[in-house]
Amino acid sequence: MDPNKSEQPNSTPEPSAVILGHCPDRKGINSAITHFISEHNGNIIDYVQHVDSEQGVFFVRIEWELKGFALPREEIEAAFKPIANRFAMTWNLHFSEAVPRMAIFVSRQTHCLYDLLARQQSGEWRVDIPLVIGNHPEVETVVRPFGIDYRHIPMTPETRVQAEQEQLALLEQNRIDFVVLARYMQVVSPEFIAHFPNRIINIHHSFLPAFVGAKPYHAAHARGVKIVGATSHYVTNELDQGPIIDQDVIRVSHKDAVEDLVRKGKDLEKIVLARAIWSHLNRQILVYNNKTVIFE
Amino acid sequence: MDPNKSEQPNSTPEPSAVILGHCPDRKGINSAITHFISEHNGNIIDYVQHVDSEQGVFFVRIEWELKGFALPREEIEAAFKPIANRFAMTWNLHFSEAVPRMAIFVSRQTHCLYDLLARQQSGEWRVDIPLVIGNHPEVETVVRPFGIDYRHIPMTPETRVQAEQEQLALLEQNRIDFVVLARYMQVVSPEFIAHFPNRIINIHHSFLPAFVGAKPYHAAHARGVKIVGATSHYVTNELDQGPIIDQDVIRVSHKDAVEDLVRKGKDLEKIVLARAIWSHLNRQILVYNNKTVIFE
Amino acid sequence: MDPNKSEQPNSTPEPSAVILGHCPDRKGINSAITHFISEHNGNIIDYVQHVDSEQGVFFVRIEWELKGFALPREEIEAAFKPIANRFAMTWNLHFSEAVPRMAIFVSRQTHCLYDLLARQQSGEWRVDIPLVIGNHPEVETVVRPFGIDYRHIPMTPETRVQAEQEQLALLEQNRIDFVVLARYMQVVSPEFIAHFPNRIINIHHSFLPAFVGAKPYHAAHARGVKIVGATSHYVTNELDQGPIIDQDVIRVSHKDAVEDLVRKGKDLEKIVLARAIWSHLNRQILVYNNKTVIFE
Amino acid sequence: MDPNKSEQPNSTPEPSAVILGHCPDRKGINSAITHFISEHNGNIIDYVQHVDSEQGVFFVRIEWELKGFALPREEIEAAFKPIANRFAMTWNLHFSEAVPRMAIFVSRQTHCLYDLLARQQSGEWRVDIPLVIGNHPEVETVVRPFGIDYRHIPMTPETRVQAEQEQLALLEQNRIDFVVLARYMQVVSPEFIAHFPNRIINIHHSFLPAFVGAKPYHAAHARGVKIVGATSHYVTNELDQGPIIDQDVIRVSHKDAVEDLVRKGKDLEKIVLARAIWSHLNRQILVYNNKTVIFE
Repeated sequence: MDPNKSEQPNSTPEPSAVILGHCPDRKGINSAITHFISEHNGNIIDYVQHVDSEQGVFFVRIEWELKGFALPREEIEAAFKPIANRFAMTWNLHFSEAVPRMAIFVSRQTHCLYDLLARQQSGEWRVDIPLVIGNHPEVETVVRPFGIDYRHIPMTPETRVQAEQEQLALLEQNRIDFVVLARYMQVVSPEFIAHFPNRIINIHHSFLPAFVGAKPYHAAHARGVKIVGATSHYVTNELDQGPIIDQDVIRVSHKDAVEDLVRKGKDLEKIVLARAIWSHLNRQILVYNNKTVIFE
Repeated sequence: MDPNKSEQPNSTPEPSAVILGHCPDRKGINSAITHFISEHNGNIIDYVQHVDSEQGVFFVRIEWELKGFALPREEIEAAFKPIANRFAMTWNLHFSEAVPRMAIFVSRQTHCLYDLLARQQSGEWRVDIPLVIGNHPEVETVVRPFGIDYRHIPMTPETRVQAEQEQLALLEQNRIDFVVLARYMQVVSPEFIAHFPNRIINIHHSFLPAFVGAKPYHAAHARGVKIVGATSHYVTNELDQGPIIDQDVIRVSHKDAVEDLVRKGKDLEKIVLARAIWSHLNRQILVYNNKTVIFE
Repeated sequence: MDPNKSEQPNSTPEPSAVILGHCPDRKGINSAITHFISEHNGNIIDYVQHVDSEQGVFFVRIEWELKGFALPREEIEAAFKPIANRFAMTWNLHFSEAVPRMAIFVSRQTHCLYDLLARQQSGEWRVDIPLVIGNHPEVETVVRPFGIDYRHIPMTPETRVQAEQEQLALLEQNRIDFVVLARYMQVVSPEFIAHFPNRIINIHHSFLPAFVGAKPYHAAHARGVKIVGATSHYVTNELDQGPIIDQDVIRVSHKDAVEDLVRKGKDLEKIVLARAIWSHLNRQILVYNNKTVIFE
Repeated sequence: MDPNKSEQPNSTPEPSAVILGHCPDRKGINSAITHFISEHNGNIIDYVQHVDSEQGVFFVRIEWELKGFALPREEIEAAFKPIANRFAMTWNLHFSEAVPRMAIFVSRQTHCLYDLLARQQSGEWRVDIPLVIGNHPEVETVVRPFGIDYRHIPMTPETRVQAEQEQLALLEQNRIDFVVLARYMQVVSPEFIAHFPNRIINIHHSFLPAFVGAKPYHAAHARGVKIVGATSHYVTNELDQGPIIDQDVIRVSHKDAVEDLVRKGKDLEKIVLARAIWSHLNRQILVYNNKTVIFE
């Protein structure tokens, strides 16, 4: 039950469609795309394009109202395809009505988990969270009151392959669209990642690329930095090297022990992870060459 | 049950004592205070002083280990009194072992509430939260799973006096030390405030003193600011005019509608309120002349 | 002479044209504009649009390469006019080759002045600064070494009208496009402003709308804020109420006296003013309803 | 000539003395130090101590008024020595009246140089800058108008040893206390550093430890970070590994090319370098174990 639902501005948005795409840059792309919407009597809500002139790549996000659009939903893809093909565009089409299904992976630390569940529960996000998977049994007591299924799958070097198979089966059963590693603290195998390319979001507790790997707060303290950070990114096969979605930082001082960095960092982690998920949910992210284009 | 407890660095701190005080500035105060600790064989963990030279006021926070201190706890107050009197110091003494008891007041918005409960539950803070009071019945479903008592006390202009009496009775029954208004959205009467001077912490959803009062995000949007903020402060009789404990801000743009400011602001509110409570819990705050001295 | 010129990436940009415009929102605007560029064989470098759905206003900034564009520069305006008229668009056209001419008004504080002159001198900006006007004679020693004309025009309540006439004559003589008030500390009359609508940039030393008017750092200190700010805005007839271009903030504490706020604030003022000028120089700003749309 | 001098709050401070020290932590240090001041009738302006409990090290900064202090300046050192010895303290004593002498090393980029010279010229800092040394002749035109000596010492791999000898001779002649590398872009030899331990301040154009070495903005762009930073630190024998004094960051996006990172970063570099120099000038920095304690 959600006491805030009535106050949520996003609870009943008008249906819209989004195309995200990128292609080699050349003349006439903007014109062709906007003409496509306009000839079918569409109303563009948001049009953003970006040209990476170094790489010669054109990026675009276009969102338009479905109300009044001359094409029915199921015909849009076929109708746009010739334009995309003309420009050799890699693209996809999303409808705002579709509510994405998200799974959360967690270890023992629960600050990010609580934060995500609270956002979903209070109606801040349009997302379904049918499943939380963890490698510690006691986290069930956190998840259960939110009415969400918690599955405890222990993770050891010996059982990893088998455990990931179980995880994948659960994700499939629950028709999961994307996975959030909410301080999961486990390395995910390339085989697993291959099932969710650019659809696994991790939060790393440092300002990447500084302090890759384990114990970044200890490393930050040892180096005597005056600012610590957190980084959300898509997971790729190289540890902590995936495309960065968002980062944020907080000032620290010589007075802060490692445990103070941990405490201050937790707040960053929650916020930075949540912002990345927001961008993902709102189809604002394009990935190209291991970097993100974020259409805010 | 708390799955994180074993990871919490603050779960079993060594017992310590804190004196917070202020007095007219003059020579010899630091020497007298530090001598007091040293003559009883105390070990100072943290000594911070500040002189407001405009106002001629001396502020001090001293924390020392109780282990090995020659005076037993119950004699410290009497032993320090002559020194305090010599300098006309306003002061108080705290023991770290005492776990403060906090009540939360809430209205319909639950993002701060969830955040506070999660922090307590996961062992991030040493605080007891025996009671949440709200003016909407449905928030009970948020609070109940945390094993905390929720009391619904409706609040209308006609019933305010009576309702505040009920609130005060509950606070007394539960031996509450301080109250947190977690987006409570109700004005608290001077009579109520008089029971908890500098012990009611509010979160205001603007960068005070800009946008005092209701609907600050609407006002910020109308003015076209490029940054919005949140402010935690102690509640005094003048609306949104109490001593500021902490503030933080986030960048916004012309693309952000009011609902985007609300969404971005919620994250600020959670963090800024939590930081204020942390400072309060750790006896880091002195109030003087409607301003705070924060001994971090 | 400029030792850095060869390192400046912006020193020889390809010539481009920019159209900035706004109009009532309706279908087909994006399509019409992009088609206009494409039918004349133009290459769009940057296309940004924004719809204020509350007000029903469409904003656009389009930048395209002049190289290869089928229309000569002098015919672009006439060719675009029918499109603009069809949508009742308020718009203007700029060519990147035109180097804007900027005048600086200054009082006794020179930190912003130095910063602006250094940026121009080192080639960071493509701008001409033929003139600095001040109401204190001694600032000439700052300006003169930069090879820029300094005019001392004293300003008293009695001489204001006459002094502003002198200023306006100098601005006209020097074909000034826009004026920067670099901590000028004088109120500018509506008559003066009318000559440069949305072309006078001021830096106010507070986080507006907090602390409007004189001595904002004193007011901030008295209120005990934990963050101070600076705000750049276009000057309008109401003091400190013009459209905000940029803002930034810095954390302060109880340890900071007014003079520390002044010192910390100076750094903010320099940066925030410079960023506003950068946006203005790059034709990134649209003003509507006393607010700015900044196309970054 | 300085038009601002009369407005500078710091232009005629009351004379004070500062002791900075660190020693193994044990009981009674605070008491001994504060007693020393008080027994000679001193008035403590600022007393800050910090204990690094991991390392068991006590740090202290004490500042007191010389007016009314019973000991004449030249006897203070000898009088304090027994206390320092008792606690095995590494310490030094400074008098606020001494105006430090600073040299600036610069290469071709002049944004930091201009900023430093402007601060000194406008009276923001109490410092003498008798000398700027550069490895490009054309920077003389920047320095000369400020009435400061500019020495051009070319720097090539073959001439480095000889060139550094010239530099050292000039520093000695000018009785330089500390050196600022204002985007100097040259590696300084261990022999040189040995003459100015913890007295050479560098600005590195990244958020260290990310992007050590050359071309950090290019590296940041390649990695796709969402925030870039700048770091001021004392120079040690290991490149970009010295004790960090201050850091700051600014948000960037996919729209920012390398040249935009450079432009945004320049503002950071100026501010972060200036803040480090301010802390150094005000005797707020203690270095221990390759980290700084900053007593703000």
